[in-house]
Amino acid sequence: MFRDKTCGELRLANVNETVTLAGWVQKTRKMGGMAFVDLRDRYGITQLAFNQEVNAALCDQANKLGREFVIQVTGVVKERSSKNNHIDTGEIEIIVSELNVLNSAETPPFTIEDETDGGDDIRMQYRYLDLRRNPVRKNMELRHKMAFEVRRFLDEQRFLEVETPILIKSTPEGARDFVVPSRMNAGQFYALPQSPQTFKQLLMVSGFDRYFQIVKCFRDEDLRADRQPEFTQIDCEMSFVDQEDVLNTFEGMAKHLFKYIKDIDFNEAFPRMVWSDAMKYYGSDKPDIRFDMRFVELKDLTVDRNFVVFDSAPYVAGICAKGAAVYTRKQLDELTDFVKKPQVGAKGLIYVRCEANGKFKSSVDKFYSQEDLKSWADRMGAVEGDLLLLICGTVSQTQKALCELRLEMGTRLGLRDKNVFAPLWVIDFPLFEWDEDSNRFYAMHHPFTSPKAEDFALLDTDPGKVRANAYDMVINGVELGGGSIRIHDSKLQNKMFQLLGFTDEKAQEQFGFLMDAFKYGAPPHGGLAFGLDRLVSLFAGLDSIRDCIAFPKNNSGRDVMIDAPAAIDDTQLKELSLLVDLKA
Amino acid sequence: MFRDKTCGELRLANVNETVTLAGWVQKTRKMGGMAFVDLRDRYGITQLAFNQEVNAALCDQANKLGREFVIQVTGVVKERSSKNNHIDTGEIEIIVSELNVLNSAETPPFTIEDETDGGDDIRMQYRYLDLRRNPVRKNMELRHKMAFEVRRFLDEQRFLEVETPILIKSTPEGARDFVVPSRMNAGQFYALPQSPQTFKQLLMVSGFDRYFQIVKCFRDEDLRADRQPEFTQIDCEMSFVDQEDVLNTFEGMAKHLFKYIKDIDFNEAFPRMVWSDAMKYYGSDKPDIRFDMRFVELKDLTVDRNFVVFDSAPYVAGICAKGAAVYTRKQLDELTDFVKKPQVGAKGLIYVRCEANGKFKSSVDKFYSQEDLKSWADRMGAVEGDLLLLICGTVSQTQKALCELRLEMGTRLGLRDKNVFAPLWVIDFPLFEWDEDSNRFYAMHHPFTSPKAEDFALLDTDPGKVRANAYDMVINGVELGGGSIRIHDSKLQNKMFQLLGFTDEKAQEQFGFLMDAFKYGAPPHGGLAFGLDRLVSLFAGLDSIRDCIAFPKNNSGRDVMIDAPAAIDDTQLKELSLLVDLKA
Repeated sequence: MFRDKTCGELRLANVNETVTLAGWVQKTRKMGGMAFVDLRDRYGITQLAFNQEVNAALCDQANKLGREFVIQVTGVVKERSSKNNHIDTGEIEIIVSELNVLNSAETPPFTIEDETDGGDDIRMQYRYLDLRRNPVRKNMELRHKMAFEVRRFLDEQRFLEVETPILIKSTPEGARDFVVPSRMNAGQFYALPQSPQTFKQLLMVSGFDRYFQIVKCFRDEDLRADRQPEFTQIDCEMSFVDQEDVLNTFEGMAKHLFKYIKDIDFNEAFPRMVWSDAMKYYGSDKPDIRFDMRFVELKDLTVDRNFVVFDSAPYVAGICAKGAAVYTRKQLDELTDFVKKPQVGAKGLIYVRCEANGKFKSSVDKFYSQEDLKSWADRMGAVEGDLLLLICGTVSQTQKALCELRLEMGTRLGLRDKNVFAPLWVIDFPLFEWDEDSNRFYAMHHPFTSPKAEDFALLDTDPGKVRANAYDMVINGVELGGGSIRIHDSKLQNKMFQLLGFTDEKAQEQFGFLMDAFKYGAPPHGGLAFGLDRLVSLFAGLDSIRDCIAFPKNNSGRDVMIDAPAAIDDTQLKELSLLVDLKA
Repeated sequence: MFRDKTCGELRLANVNETVTLAGWVQKTRKMGGMAFVDLRDRYGITQLAFNQEVNAALCDQANKLGREFVIQVTGVVKERSSKNNHIDTGEIEIIVSELNVLNSAETPPFTIEDETDGGDDIRMQYRYLDLRRNPVRKNMELRHKMAFEVRRFLDEQRFLEVETPILIKSTPEGARDFVVPSRMNAGQFYALPQSPQTFKQLLMVSGFDRYFQIVKCFRDEDLRADRQPEFTQIDCEMSFVDQEDVLNTFEGMAKHLFKYIKDIDFNEAFPRMVWSDAMKYYGSDKPDIRFDMRFVELKDLTVDRNFVVFDSAPYVAGICAKGAAVYTRKQLDELTDFVKKPQVGAKGLIYVRCEANGKFKSSVDKFYSQEDLKSWADRMGAVEGDLLLLICGTVSQTQKALCELRLEMGTRLGLRDKNVFAPLWVIDFPLFEWDEDSNRFYAMHHPFTSPKAEDFALLDTDPGKVRANAYDMVINGVELGGGSIRIHDSKLQNKMFQLLGFTDEKAQEQFGFLMDAFKYGAPPHGGLAFGLDRLVSLFAGLDSIRDCIAFPKNNSGRDVMIDAPAAIDDTQLKELSLLVDLKA
């Protein structure tokens, strides 16, 4: 061992002990006849002191140490005269008697400090140096701890972690698969799993009763800020349960994590909201309920005043921004520009300021009387000093735009504190969503999701209205996990495949093994999957999941550090019976 | 919840409780006016009783239940008149008042019993039914528990589990990679990792200090009984350590597992053997030391007796099989056939029986006197009743054959008890092995393994003689894990690449990012990786790692249950800019 203590553990109690430390040079400084070195390892920083008078050669050597040199020192722990209260070891220093340079270091391309001068690109290219920075490493430590606590909780609940295969079979339904050519089965391909869905259901057929796995999943999609081609799921499934059991179990898991990781107690049950309410009041299936600001429908109060914009719109709704009547013209223009952005998609924004003495000032004063405006304000529960913001259009467009505006206002008004956690179950999702382009239904969750028993009859008459036993856990507007009670009856499963437009042959080809398995005694079962990356991001207060992944890929799916993907040798291609055809 | 108790938990203490259970029908039997059903779940079996006189309809329904039907029952717990001591719930039964068939089942293609009538192929095709069998499920439970204990131990030792990427870059060195075509980077490929080796070394450069990961790795090799295309490693790395620290840490992990999983205490340090002794005495770098039977070299005692076979062989050696002098001619012929098998590769086998009164009977009596034979027996420590078995040839061929023969004799003599565990560290492996075909050195472990300091000079003069700081943990003749202290100096690493015949360009292309990283302050580090599949197999006493993998692949790399790999759509190929060329 190159050390007997770490750089984070020495205290006043250790004074006069002789210790050996090893680590990286954080910084060196010369003061009078002394040289000081901050020595860093994963556990902390310890100050090393070298006295020119006592040992000139050693002190000179210390002065020559560069940033990020790897050194080993031996010395005696002494109380510091000027203490540093910002670090745990700030009361002591090491009077060094031996210095051994284990490795030198070139000057790093950016500073290894909590606040670095390196931009995103260079930090990704030198990710191994970025990972030396405290805030980045702390994210990984949090990730380790969260995964460990998840396992501890689920183990105690008698869940078994079972590894399912990574080399599986491609299923064109859903997102695009990554595929892996097989050398031993020329012309054939494995696929990487988008989730272990079918395997976990098979494990329920096998009687495993309670399964989980923290597992890498893969999706070949065009990437956005919060998507990675490989991501990690906490994948879970239980037998002989109904929806209530699944919600209770995993609400318990979330509470366990809040308790053990963040020391936050949730004594109440998480609130639940049906999907239709989430859409109606928040325009989103993952509402951020840290703040209220619900949508209020106003269509009936806006008609017959010759305001064509509202009159021609099927849907008019608004939100009430508490205390924002002071917003200036410039601020209101910014909000109008915001809602008109293509990704928000509104045509315009109407405002009403609730001013002193029950007066209203709005951008539609020409069309609406003070009484009209008062009727809006009353319905929205607005009081003096509040700002009403209205958008109109089709229901779906307007809900989307108003949702974005609501979140924007929440941010502007400081209602989205990262240290406040507002969990929510969204339940009763629709079973299907209709796709205009392909003129068919798609499974909103996946084809194995069971419809609610009370909606069975609608399967034949109005499938679009059927609700599913499907649920999402949403915290602070982030969908952390979702799942469903599965179909365990092969007849019902066949009906689902029919409604989804699968021919019998196609269903058999894709999911034959699962349908076959169901013939041999499938128990009622259900489960869910959490996104570990998102869960860690939420707990760490990060803006992107990338920051809690040790070696993430960029938006083109590239790892710029190792320069992957890359071309491969012709012999490799030949062994795989493949040709690259870039014209295609 | 479909139940309030499981099938494994009811005892006499529960008598008169009303309970609801759910599970699978293990078997039904009719006795007098009663019907009995064994109900099974993951936790056990509980007997259900139905009385024809009390409820004829219910009893009839019970009699109609087929094997593997999924049912839910409610009833009262009663003491059994005829108790079953073989199961934990054998003192009670449930007098059923309600029966609900949750799912019917077709007759399974093999019996769901500890000893099944199903062959390997059918059990793999219906793996989800095979997993219902107790012994198979118990292997998965053991695997879960072992992985959990590994994590608990390493977490306590301050190791951080860090997920490294699965989509990485192909490195032609070593075994064949599986590759993954990139759609977004046409003509380029990711590779699946054979191990996270370079990433864990980068994490040491990042100052993570102690890393581990239980992680899937991939190797596109032609498969043998103990190989799978995807397998699971316990991958570990530590900074500021030397070999002794790594051995102690992971010996601790192994002892922890033996203690917590099998309740076996290892109070002594694991024995250590240098690689050259392992080869000399056992002809193997993974000797099974549950039994002794070491090789004894006899060349000098066999010369000048006109026995051309021995005289023309550079190496003559034998083993002493205690108490096997009673072996018959037929048994000896079997052994001769055994060593002549192509995979063993000896030309023949010489035996010497140590008989009563100091007499010897051998297959080479024509050439060797009783005194000659006695000199052999003396050197081998043989006594009356022992059998000497000799093989000759080149050193490497003979060691290999004698190793196989030794293991065979160990098995025949009952010296390889699966409940006895004999751990061993094999150390001081050679740094290189010479490959005759390509006329170059290969890294025996991998190119990042550090040579022993005392052998540095040999790098220039006789590289083949250089020993590495490399080590394997071997238990009962199985290599469970191995690793090395790594090179942390870029100059030494460059020299290694030269000796391995890499051009600067090739080394830069393959490992540039690692060598670059080393320039910024790499700490001394080392580690190892355990094969989780092998570790579980050893603890479970299995003959094949397949039996501890939930969904294994067969020898052609196929998953016969889901029928993967398979052809993919032309549109998928086109998106990937690929053509399949089966003529190639």
